[in-house]
Amino acid sequence: MFIDNLIDKIKKLDNPTVAGLDPKLDYIPAFILEKAFKEYGQNELGAAKAILEFNKGLIDGLYDVVPAVKPQLAYYEMYGIEGLKTMQETVSYARSKGMEVILDAKRNDIGSTAEAYSTAFLGKTKIGNSEKAMFEADALTVSPYFGIDGVEPFIKDCEKYGKGIFILVKTSNKSSGQLQDLKTEAGTPIYEIMANYVNDWGKNTIGKHGYSSIGAVVGATYPKQCAELRVIMQNAYFLVPGYGAQGGGAKDVAPAFNKDGLGAIVNSSRGIMCAYKSAMYSDKYSEEAYSEAARAEALRMKEDINSVIK
Amino acid sequence: MFIDNLIDKIKKLDNPTVAGLDPKLDYIPAFILEKAFKEYGQNELGAAKAILEFNKGLIDGLYDVVPAVKPQLAYYEMYGIEGLKTMQETVSYARSKGMEVILDAKRNDIGSTAEAYSTAFLGKTKIGNSEKAMFEADALTVSPYFGIDGVEPFIKDCEKYGKGIFILVKTSNKSSGQLQDLKTEAGTPIYEIMANYVNDWGKNTIGKHGYSSIGAVVGATYPKQCAELRVIMQNAYFLVPGYGAQGGGAKDVAPAFNKDGLGAIVNSSRGIMCAYKSAMYSDKYSEEAYSEAARAEALRMKEDINSVIK
Repeated sequence: MFIDNLIDKIKKLDNPTVAGLDPKLDYIPAFILEKAFKEYGQNELGAAKAILEFNKGLIDGLYDVVPAVKPQLAYYEMYGIEGLKTMQETVSYARSKGMEVILDAKRNDIGSTAEAYSTAFLGKTKIGNSEKAMFEADALTVSPYFGIDGVEPFIKDCEKYGKGIFILVKTSNKSSGQLQDLKTEAGTPIYEIMANYVNDWGKNTIGKHGYSSIGAVVGATYPKQCAELRVIMQNAYFLVPGYGAQGGGAKDVAPAFNKDGLGAIVNSSRGIMCAYKSAMYSDKYSEEAYSEAARAEALRMKEDINSVIK
Repeated sequence: MFIDNLIDKIKKLDNPTVAGLDPKLDYIPAFILEKAFKEYGQNELGAAKAILEFNKGLIDGLYDVVPAVKPQLAYYEMYGIEGLKTMQETVSYARSKGMEVILDAKRNDIGSTAEAYSTAFLGKTKIGNSEKAMFEADALTVSPYFGIDGVEPFIKDCEKYGKGIFILVKTSNKSSGQLQDLKTEAGTPIYEIMANYVNDWGKNTIGKHGYSSIGAVVGATYPKQCAELRVIMQNAYFLVPGYGAQGGGAKDVAPAFNKDGLGAIVNSSRGIMCAYKSAMYSDKYSEEAYSEAARAEALRMKEDINSVIK
């Protein structure tokens, strides 16, 4: 099952982090972009091919030090069909290298439609007498606005296919409190209510390490709320955005972990993807060595986070 | 701008409805499906080609009586890249016939990512010195869990490109109350709070008919809440799911309209797409005449809804 595979990899690599693959064109080294534009045209095909090469290089540099990647679908959809082909190939490539793939799609809808989304990303599409996985990820992010109807089809596929989901609980962005921090009549903030739902929804998918394949998205930018949520959702794994570029540091992500050193996987996207451009690495790594720079930053991040949880 | 174009078409056709294009394979007449499987294989390509032919036939039967179509992305994503090509071609075909296209995608994320989603579906992707629309819809559905950060990029593109969005407020599904009906300390349900946000967020995009391009999704299955929301969101157009297959009737959708007979567009998906199979039409229309059956149901639905709002 997803959560056991993920934790096994986190333990093996001693690294509770995930590399976000949110490829903007200006993140990509010029030599890759120019080559792709020359070969395929300065259009969405060229852009998508450049992203694919960039992603593969990143995965090559990361797969034996980072347990998972998290492609964010928006950055592929914005290059149309070609972008989505690149997403699909990125997912396959990362899985072929043994990484867990968390597709960050925040899908949500009424039950019948949620079922179709789940089929697309976690399950298999039935056509005639055969079945085929379309965009086969290991886990998917899901938005909870519809309540259980809109989440249940994903949970069913988690059970059936050994997949996972991370449900938005407390997001990392500035305005997340507009809805998520509102307090109910009983004085309970919405994010706590969602956390209780996540507990309830995840109770049938708890694996050998004591964690459920139904996890939660909890931003590193709100350490106080994160600490509260850690107490409430004992069995939920947290997918933690907000480290690095969004402003969260190791101390901010520490509350997302349990005393066993498990319970959270911290995402970094820009920090890893653009390491080769940053002041910390640009002297040592050329543009051509972006993959090594990403690896160096992933190893630095691992040490940084492990230093506060152990 | 979107909302003016939509209302002009609603007035011209005297029809406040939208045809949902949520194509399950068992909705498609056997002769289309068999032909596509024979020509392209019994796989996602064959399925996607069958869906495209079915959709085009539906659009041919509807474009001069129904102002808009609403493709639901999940039903295309579940057929992979080929499914998404069909979605893209369906959008283009409907727009070429003069219909407004509301892409039902319920996208949501932090600001920078919401910007990428908005670029994909409402805006234009910049590559080098040129810009290109990828999946160009007229409007998109959006989920509000992140607060304004996650909605603002869509609003900006609505202003820049004359597009629209419909923000989830009170959804039609059974468990929508798990989050949306919770009451805050002041006794206000969450759906009312979201409604006030929609008012605030939409105040700069109000068109010539007094309505904003920033609309709301309000389900027909909750007529009481719908009536409350109609009072709160005077300037918001409601996209109303839940008529027909989901159990709502004309009387249930009536509260979504203002006294001017405007203010809502009611969706029917299965009712229109599967009209040819239904007891009401199957005697009169053969499978080959599914497009005419869809048209007959669309006209019946128009009369049904107009009877309660005029």
